[in-house]
Amino acid sequence: MKILIIGGNGTIGSKVSAHFAKKHEVIIAGRTSGDVTLDMADSDSVKAMFEKVGKVDAVVCTAGDAKWANFDDLTEDDFYIGIKSKLMGQVNLVRIGKDYMNPNGSFTLSTGILADHPVLMTTSPAMVNGAIHSFVKAACLELSNIRINVVSSGLVEDAVEHYEAYFPGHNPIPMTKVVNGFVKSVEGGGTGEIIRMYDNS
Amino acid sequence: MKILIIGGNGTIGSKVSAHFAKKHEVIIAGRTSGDVTLDMADSDSVKAMFEKVGKVDAVVCTAGDAKWANFDDLTEDDFYIGIKSKLMGQVNLVRIGKDYMNPNGSFTLSTGILADHPVLMTTSPAMVNGAIHSFVKAACLELSNIRINVVSSGLVEDAVEHYEAYFPGHNPIPMTKVVNGFVKSVEGGGTGEIIRMYDNS
Repeated sequence: MKILIIGGNGTIGSKVSAHFAKKHEVIIAGRTSGDVTLDMADSDSVKAMFEKVGKVDAVVCTAGDAKWANFDDLTEDDFYIGIKSKLMGQVNLVRIGKDYMNPNGSFTLSTGILADHPVLMTTSPAMVNGAIHSFVKAACLELSNIRINVVSSGLVEDAVEHYEAYFPGHNPIPMTKVVNGFVKSVEGGGTGEIIRMYDNS
Repeated sequence: MKILIIGGNGTIGSKVSAHFAKKHEVIIAGRTSGDVTLDMADSDSVKAMFEKVGKVDAVVCTAGDAKWANFDDLTEDDFYIGIKSKLMGQVNLVRIGKDYMNPNGSFTLSTGILADHPVLMTTSPAMVNGAIHSFVKAACLELSNIRINVVSSGLVEDAVEHYEAYFPGHNPIPMTKVVNGFVKSVEGGGTGEIIRMYDNS
C-alpha cells in the first residue's frame, strides 16, 4: 500500500510511520519536515499536497492543533485555531483527498480521549475531537469504496512527560497499542469506527 | 426564574417556551421575532442581546443552523455555516452569557440524534452536534456556580412532515418528551449531561 501520513514525524505519527514503513510505501507530510509539507489549516495547501503525492491507498492523519486554555481565557479566535486546523483540516483531508484515493482505500483520522473524557482547559480540543467523531460516523455513510475511521487515544506513553499533569489519574497508553489502532483502521475492514485506545474509562 | 430562550419561536422552542412560561418569566430571542433579536452567528450580536436582557437564571438555546447536503457537494464554506451558527453560536452564548448568569443558573444547549446516529447528507450537522456534546462535557468542569447541559433530540413529532424522509426507521419523539429534556436540564440539578431523547437507538 501507498500510505500518506500527515504529521508523520510527530509524537504518535513517528511511531505509526515507522511501523507501516516495514511493509508499505510511506509518504510523510508535515508542517516543516517530511517528504511533502503542508499547512493543514489551509485547504489550498491540502490540495497542493495531494497533487504532489498523487493517488494513495491510505491517508493517516496524526496532526492538528487546538488551543488548550481555561475557558474563561479563550477568545472566539482561539476556538477557531482548532476549528481551522484539527477539525476542518481533517475534514478537508477527506473532502479533497477522496479524489486521490485508490478504490478500497481508507482515511484514518486522529482525535483523543478528551472527546469523551475532557480535562480542565480543554473546551476547545474536546469540542474538535467530538466533532470529528460524529463527522466520521456521518461520512462513512456516503463515501463510496473508501473506508473512514478515527483513532482516539488516551494519554500516550511518549507524551507523558509533557502532559501527565493535565490528565490526573489517566493511565498512559503504550505506543504499541496506539499504533495498533491505526493498523486496525488501515489494514482491517471496518468503517465508521471510533477506535478508542483508552485504559481507565 | 428568568429564562432566556434563543429560538423560542421555532419548532422545538415554541413548545419549550410555552411550557416554561406557565411558571417562569420567559424572554424569547429570535432571528426576526421575539422579545429580542439576534444573529447567533455574530458574537457582537450575542453580546448586544445579553446587554439588553440583563441577568438571567437560565439560558436555553433551541436555535442554530447547519447545512444539509451530500458530502460530495459540501464546500469548505458550507461547513462554516454550521460552525459559525449552531457550533460557535452556542459556544459564544456560554462564553459571553456566563457573565450575565445569576448564581446557580444554567445553560441548556441543543443538538440532535445526528451526533450519535447520523443519516445521509448530515456530515456537517452531525459534526456540529458532536462538537457541542464534547464541549458541554468539558465546559462543565470549569463553569463555577453555573450548570450546563445539552438536549439531543431524535426526529421530533412536530418536524415529522418535513424530515421523516431523511430519517428512515426513526421513531418520532413526542413534543412532551422533548420539552421534558429541557425541564430536566433547567429545573434539575445535573451538569455536563447529554440528555438524549431518542427512541430507537
